[in-house]
Amino acid sequence: MKNTFGQSVAVTIFGESHGAEIGVVIDGMAPGIEVDEKFIADQLTLRRPVGRISTARKEQDRFRIVSGVFNRKTTGTPICIVIPNEDTRSKDYSATRALARPGHADYTAYCKYHGFEDYRGGGHFSGRITAGLVAGGAIAISALKNLGINIGTHICSLGNIHDRPFEDMDEDIAALNKMGFAVLDKNKEAEMIRMIEDAAADGDSVGGVLETAVTGFPKGVGEPWFDTVEGILSHALFSIPAVKGVEFGAGFDLVNAHGSDFNDPLRIEDGKIETLSNNNGGVNGGITNGMPILFRCAVKPTASIYKKQETVDFIKNENAVLQIQGRHDPAIIHRARVVVDSVTALVLCDMLAGRFGTDYLAGK
Amino acid sequence: MKNTFGQSVAVTIFGESHGAEIGVVIDGMAPGIEVDEKFIADQLTLRRPVGRISTARKEQDRFRIVSGVFNRKTTGTPICIVIPNEDTRSKDYSATRALARPGHADYTAYCKYHGFEDYRGGGHFSGRITAGLVAGGAIAISALKNLGINIGTHICSLGNIHDRPFEDMDEDIAALNKMGFAVLDKNKEAEMIRMIEDAAADGDSVGGVLETAVTGFPKGVGEPWFDTVEGILSHALFSIPAVKGVEFGAGFDLVNAHGSDFNDPLRIEDGKIETLSNNNGGVNGGITNGMPILFRCAVKPTASIYKKQETVDFIKNENAVLQIQGRHDPAIIHRARVVVDSVTALVLCDMLAGRFGTDYLAGK
Amino acid sequence: MKNTFGQSVAVTIFGESHGAEIGVVIDGMAPGIEVDEKFIADQLTLRRPVGRISTARKEQDRFRIVSGVFNRKTTGTPICIVIPNEDTRSKDYSATRALARPGHADYTAYCKYHGFEDYRGGGHFSGRITAGLVAGGAIAISALKNLGINIGTHICSLGNIHDRPFEDMDEDIAALNKMGFAVLDKNKEAEMIRMIEDAAADGDSVGGVLETAVTGFPKGVGEPWFDTVEGILSHALFSIPAVKGVEFGAGFDLVNAHGSDFNDPLRIEDGKIETLSNNNGGVNGGITNGMPILFRCAVKPTASIYKKQETVDFIKNENAVLQIQGRHDPAIIHRARVVVDSVTALVLCDMLAGRFGTDYLAGK
Amino acid sequence: MKNTFGQSVAVTIFGESHGAEIGVVIDGMAPGIEVDEKFIADQLTLRRPVGRISTARKEQDRFRIVSGVFNRKTTGTPICIVIPNEDTRSKDYSATRALARPGHADYTAYCKYHGFEDYRGGGHFSGRITAGLVAGGAIAISALKNLGINIGTHICSLGNIHDRPFEDMDEDIAALNKMGFAVLDKNKEAEMIRMIEDAAADGDSVGGVLETAVTGFPKGVGEPWFDTVEGILSHALFSIPAVKGVEFGAGFDLVNAHGSDFNDPLRIEDGKIETLSNNNGGVNGGITNGMPILFRCAVKPTASIYKKQETVDFIKNENAVLQIQGRHDPAIIHRARVVVDSVTALVLCDMLAGRFGTDYLAGK
Repeated sequence: MKNTFGQSVAVTIFGESHGAEIGVVIDGMAPGIEVDEKFIADQLTLRRPVGRISTARKEQDRFRIVSGVFNRKTTGTPICIVIPNEDTRSKDYSATRALARPGHADYTAYCKYHGFEDYRGGGHFSGRITAGLVAGGAIAISALKNLGINIGTHICSLGNIHDRPFEDMDEDIAALNKMGFAVLDKNKEAEMIRMIEDAAADGDSVGGVLETAVTGFPKGVGEPWFDTVEGILSHALFSIPAVKGVEFGAGFDLVNAHGSDFNDPLRIEDGKIETLSNNNGGVNGGITNGMPILFRCAVKPTASIYKKQETVDFIKNENAVLQIQGRHDPAIIHRARVVVDSVTALVLCDMLAGRFGTDYLAGK
Repeated sequence: MKNTFGQSVAVTIFGESHGAEIGVVIDGMAPGIEVDEKFIADQLTLRRPVGRISTARKEQDRFRIVSGVFNRKTTGTPICIVIPNEDTRSKDYSATRALARPGHADYTAYCKYHGFEDYRGGGHFSGRITAGLVAGGAIAISALKNLGINIGTHICSLGNIHDRPFEDMDEDIAALNKMGFAVLDKNKEAEMIRMIEDAAADGDSVGGVLETAVTGFPKGVGEPWFDTVEGILSHALFSIPAVKGVEFGAGFDLVNAHGSDFNDPLRIEDGKIETLSNNNGGVNGGITNGMPILFRCAVKPTASIYKKQETVDFIKNENAVLQIQGRHDPAIIHRARVVVDSVTALVLCDMLAGRFGTDYLAGK
Repeated sequence: MKNTFGQSVAVTIFGESHGAEIGVVIDGMAPGIEVDEKFIADQLTLRRPVGRISTARKEQDRFRIVSGVFNRKTTGTPICIVIPNEDTRSKDYSATRALARPGHADYTAYCKYHGFEDYRGGGHFSGRITAGLVAGGAIAISALKNLGINIGTHICSLGNIHDRPFEDMDEDIAALNKMGFAVLDKNKEAEMIRMIEDAAADGDSVGGVLETAVTGFPKGVGEPWFDTVEGILSHALFSIPAVKGVEFGAGFDLVNAHGSDFNDPLRIEDGKIETLSNNNGGVNGGITNGMPILFRCAVKPTASIYKKQETVDFIKNENAVLQIQGRHDPAIIHRARVVVDSVTALVLCDMLAGRFGTDYLAGK
Repeated sequence: MKNTFGQSVAVTIFGESHGAEIGVVIDGMAPGIEVDEKFIADQLTLRRPVGRISTARKEQDRFRIVSGVFNRKTTGTPICIVIPNEDTRSKDYSATRALARPGHADYTAYCKYHGFEDYRGGGHFSGRITAGLVAGGAIAISALKNLGINIGTHICSLGNIHDRPFEDMDEDIAALNKMGFAVLDKNKEAEMIRMIEDAAADGDSVGGVLETAVTGFPKGVGEPWFDTVEGILSHALFSIPAVKGVEFGAGFDLVNAHGSDFNDPLRIEDGKIETLSNNNGGVNGGITNGMPILFRCAVKPTASIYKKQETVDFIKNENAVLQIQGRHDPAIIHRARVVVDSVTALVLCDMLAGRFGTDYLAGK
């Protein structure tokens, strides 16, 4: 289904980096959910590049809700949001059209689309397209919030700098959602920003790990096979450019553990069944257990760097050296964080609507 | 779609651990692919428990091909394979029906299915169901082999014991596919087996990481958004019980890297475009680049251990202590490896049929 | 998705006319629905050939529920039902393997499956496969009945013999569901049977129209575009071999009407909003309006006739004359009726589970 | 999946009658297909109301291709086309908001969307939305034409006035595609237009039957179950507002036929296998046989009429009398014809891409 994801709540994206507009269609949101344009704008701001730690391309993200919202509420029919591309400089790219930027999709796009792809600024592969996901995801985030479900993501690590883990999860999530640069231990913020700036100064880039927590999500959602919570979330998360790994709960760190360390003992607390640890990330057998859903995404260092790189000209079919021009991000992780929240919210809405019916998301 | 995965080649699974039979339906395989029942049997043998490092439950896996194969070749219509359950001891489970085994799906199944689930031996959540995936996957593996596409998985690490990485990939894959216990460095085999036996002796269990390589897969397959190669593979891989993380190429290890280390430089070798490193695991922008597809699955320690554990009785709604009886695996990773190969093969067949048409898998 | 239909409740079929077994997987039925094996057997009996008006092939339809039912109730996981083929005479077909039977799928199967298809008895194209739909559909019919939703189908016309239209719909449906030969005006039964016998005596066959009514179905189900009630039902109904047309409400008879005759005026009756006529067949804008869902399927005369027919040998690529041997139905319509009910029930279950959540079908 | 249809080529629609813009996303078209904006404009013109036989609402349909086209060719990524709504008069509707127009979706929309629906001008239910299908369908029609596949639809009957059947199909299709009012027997055009004008003068409306032929479509496409050619086409066609029946080949007229009349004898003509008649409409067992695909859609009389009608106020829950104001079509059939062509083209593109791979539509 390519550019559409989800069954009960489906998201479709379209657009290219240097086209007139990009956009998103969200289909299946319950009727009657309040749509707060200010919140959409705020979420887009979180994704927008800032200062020296991001690309110099400046986008206003003046989005238009084209359909599916009436009297500031969702109608239940497809919500289309369109965002104009404003600050495009297409001439930056044409000269190097066939020089594959290492780590980028230039060459694979050429293999797949036979040269008909819009190569300007990465075309349909550009991180720019995630603005549509953020705009649409904002509505999903609002809907979930009304149901008592909250999502928060922090920069768990950047290079070798580690943020502290989640502690009081609801408080941490609330705090994160007010931050432009999402680290729980504010002492680490300056360190991380300096690392990005150093990489930028060096014409290089850095990567890291994002960690996401979801609280308040109901028990008993997900499937034992194929449509596991982990499977569906990871399917969508790997769409986010630069994500190369997704792990739940203890994830890859479990390697040295024994079952007796890893298993999460169950207890009744205040009449509610809970687990004492959360190594399974809130999911057993593909199905939520009522604990916070916890996962991490590995975000590779931005592929666009200014250093000279070995590559090929895939049209002339010869070796070449590339020195990228244009405007690029020395790190993407601080901008990707709101994309992770958005994608997560859309996927969770899909699961909830599938499990409890199409009106559930409006609180019915 | 729950127990069905794939669009062009779709796999559907059914059955419970202690039901009469389990099975699989593979729909969309091209007509004319040779079906080798001996190979299916061999693959099932790889999944079957052996010696002290596995459960004592012994299954013959006497599968029957019920449909979709005529004159030893696929017809192009749904292939149903049914496998009887033979060595079931249902009484082992009834006494502890409402005692949630930590790390298992007992409680989440109860939340989802309201107590109507077949709880015997894990029911539909049992690893037993993966026998269907292996049987069906064997046909997919054969089809891919005919196209020059090979898949191999090794136990990359078990606890803190690490196998060597892939070197000559095609040779390594060929070697792995002849092994019962898949480690590339045979010195590590005894060490790993001892670790499993020690855990077993202690009533405990161990986990690890599986690493998979796919060679010969065509360029230009996959989608930039949602149906990325990473997204679709991970979606399916997270179905394998105990998998809690999936990473491609350098994965989570990329954290400390800079873009200049991570990016894979491109070169023309013998007229073919290749990359000098493979940190992206053969996928850029969601699309294959012709390099081996490389990924790792984190496999948590088996949840069934014999040590006493704190838990709850979710029907009486009270705290309890559980000491599991029955027959269980002290490690699942050496058996899960063929499941990873099988799932990978089914997913890759789906991608190829979607990309190149329904006859492609028969070499047309 | 080929042999799988439905999103929330999905049905997958497999098998060939002369294979060992055929079967069905129903995935997504709510947990806790009572499964009445006697009712499944009764429904299969309705589909089974009887007397001189059907094929001489006799099948016992000794079905086995392989999975998804525990303590006589659905578990919520996939229900697989397998039905052995018993009375097969494969030698009937081998001689005429490449002589396309006019009106049949022999030649199109050859075009699609390149000769690898199981051609014995129509293989996967055989009406025999519908036994799986009937077995699975029986569970869907039971679930709907518990929700107050009833489905009934009558032979609206056979050749030029017309049954009376529905009058008291609930009574008519109840009566139909007790009949082996489903006509509302019992005077027409003998006439219709004679017409079938005459056709049989003449080595020929007859077709007709089935009309189906569904009462008690909730308002507000269906989608304005693509997944309209009409669209989804027709999609599934055209799977039934021999169905060549589907119409809702007044259907093709509307041609001479004006809007003022066709529109269904609305009235409040006993506090409920109803329409005075039902020319729209219970669906407006793709969505149910609370009136009975009413539709008709055109069932072509059985393609297998004993008269000499002009055809081709598609392997030798030459003209030929065919005189079919074997055992065939002079009419299929009286047997197809329970297939229509079954398919309808499965589709409606899918719609309801999608609209109201996965537990709805169990009455929650 | 609601407002998205298709797997390999998927179409998504959005918008409301009186919103700012409506639109369509076509995903999965092969890269490299020429996009002729003039042809898109021409197709939109065919859908646009004309003269006294249509609504007085005048739309310029100044569409914008927002994405997926680069250098006048498809890129292979999603094509989004947006069409502004210009001539909207929303005040026409507000007074009668809760008076269900008989035959319309007002009441069912209210049941489904709980009053949050955009009710102005039919909102998302409006025939206006089909402009998106026509714009997107134009690209599909062009792609098919390049492959030698042609689609043509005529007004088979309007009220009791019947056009002549197809004769030389390719010639007839070519002729139809140049006509604004699509009748093969031009003597019938004036008669039909007069019937529409008479209905209009009387404040009433008329319906009819559209017949569609597709030539040049390859053999061996379609599935035996569920995804039959008939099933998928009808699924999509029932989306077209006012379509209440779909039949293939002889359709409902088969009722009086015997198998010996209905079966299409096969012959070899010029080395090609053909059938002498086409009662099966080019499809046997759900799969194309190389003959023209032939089907008919029953189009009900437009629901909006100016006569007084009995109805209910579904908010006050009381009986009412409605006299519709505003601008409406006394017949829709002459405008629906290009929508049928468009939907058909999109569905056939989906089938071809699924069968032969994603590059097939560009002639590879």
